[in-house]
Amino acid sequence: MARVTEQELTDQVLARFAAAPDERLRAVMQALVRHLHAFTREVRLADAEWLAAVRFLTATGKACDGARQEVILLSDVLGLSSLVDLVNHARDDENLTETTILGPFYVPGSPWREFGSSMVEYADGGEPAVIRGSVRGVDGTPIEAAVLDVWQNAATGYYAVQQPGVQPATNLRGRYRTGPDGRYELRTIRPVPYPVPDDGPVGELLRATGRHPWRAAHLHAIVSADGHLPVVTHLFDAASDHLDSDAVFGVKASLVREFTPGPDGVLECEHDLVLHPAG
Amino acid sequence: MARVTEQELTDQVLARFAAAPDERLRAVMQALVRHLHAFTREVRLADAEWLAAVRFLTATGKACDGARQEVILLSDVLGLSSLVDLVNHARDDENLTETTILGPFYVPGSPWREFGSSMVEYADGGEPAVIRGSVRGVDGTPIEAAVLDVWQNAATGYYAVQQPGVQPATNLRGRYRTGPDGRYELRTIRPVPYPVPDDGPVGELLRATGRHPWRAAHLHAIVSADGHLPVVTHLFDAASDHLDSDAVFGVKASLVREFTPGPDGVLECEHDLVLHPAG
Repeated sequence: MARVTEQELTDQVLARFAAAPDERLRAVMQALVRHLHAFTREVRLADAEWLAAVRFLTATGKACDGARQEVILLSDVLGLSSLVDLVNHARDDENLTETTILGPFYVPGSPWREFGSSMVEYADGGEPAVIRGSVRGVDGTPIEAAVLDVWQNAATGYYAVQQPGVQPATNLRGRYRTGPDGRYELRTIRPVPYPVPDDGPVGELLRATGRHPWRAAHLHAIVSADGHLPVVTHLFDAASDHLDSDAVFGVKASLVREFTPGPDGVLECEHDLVLHPAG
Repeated sequence: MARVTEQELTDQVLARFAAAPDERLRAVMQALVRHLHAFTREVRLADAEWLAAVRFLTATGKACDGARQEVILLSDVLGLSSLVDLVNHARDDENLTETTILGPFYVPGSPWREFGSSMVEYADGGEPAVIRGSVRGVDGTPIEAAVLDVWQNAATGYYAVQQPGVQPATNLRGRYRTGPDGRYELRTIRPVPYPVPDDGPVGELLRATGRHPWRAAHLHAIVSADGHLPVVTHLFDAASDHLDSDAVFGVKASLVREFTPGPDGVLECEHDLVLHPAG
């Protein structure tokens, strides 16, 4: 009696999803089945490897709690989060500010801060720095009252949200508005590299594959303005380690900037931003 | 400044795994990245879809406990468990007994039972049946003292392991040996269809995609004998519902048998098994 072949089995599974009432869900699930089956056939996945994958995914799900999202971390280190960002937000215009991943440390509702003021609320070392630049439209027009919602880590490597009771909750984050000339300016400290959480299953995967958990030093920003598409982006320090091996594949060459000492010894960094019109 | 393309991002991730010290792990992870990225690009996975997938996988991991393995269930309903079985155990010889998945209800160390004896320890309805046949080598030689480690569900649909305190722990499972002529015989009740657990994330997926959770009625067996490869297999009831739509893609045409009434009204089912030599 004829045996089911591997391809026939894949076809059976594809056919089983053919009745899904939602057209998009059907297409996504069928594509997922095709690609996962192709992977399994290509590598000739062994029983023991399948079981190891089951255990890994189980532990990854179980490692998630309010403050930890290990499944997103897995997506990050496989480059999937950055790929989804590219698929959804990449645009051909090379003048536009490039997007990158949001990351797990964004907290909505940061305090509004004045032009040029500091978002350092807790002295814990770090090199003082001022970051300034313009926000413009694609035609070069300065955008007044654009909002930069920024956040970064402390000199110890931690974000405020990771250290409740140590750093004030709003330390090193804030919302700044551009002036009539489209300029923004903020005072902070230089961000530092930090490792993604590596004490869970994803950390084990990184170690087993000879990878490090470090992210290159960066400041996050969500830049928004009326009549424009908001952009989720980073500003990377050109002097940072790990720019070529960021653990989550977030670095874009267009987002790397020099921090240079100013006349008063404070580091200065200039970073202009360009937004796409909405609609 | 040139933007990273989707393909370049994929290449970056592949390169990052190139230093994995274990050659096999490197190959598997690189293939996984290629296929997952190809899936993501092909379907143009939306931000919200990615987040839904993150939440689904998180819930799937969290649904696992001692008695429930939702990640394996996910693998089952995507046909991956059956594909891994095919990849590892399929053989060209059409005389050999075909393999299928182990399933979650196997309990090692079932009681040894005499030739022809019953494994029904708890009367809860069901149609009495006798199952018999031979175990042979590929050359047709009967195999003496081959072991059939069998398990199945009760007429209520549940396996003993699912109903501690209701069914005796060893109800409807047992180990039988073949005689000098290679024959085995066991008394039981007719197995019935049952749904896979569908009150978790995988159940939601089945409902969202218009699929049912039912498995066709079957009896499990692990058949082993000195000098031969053990085989993990099922025996399906030809009269069962869901043979063409088994939720976990376990049905193989070569494993479907008729249960026919015998002279005393007891159902009879004949099923011969053929093992491959070891080594």
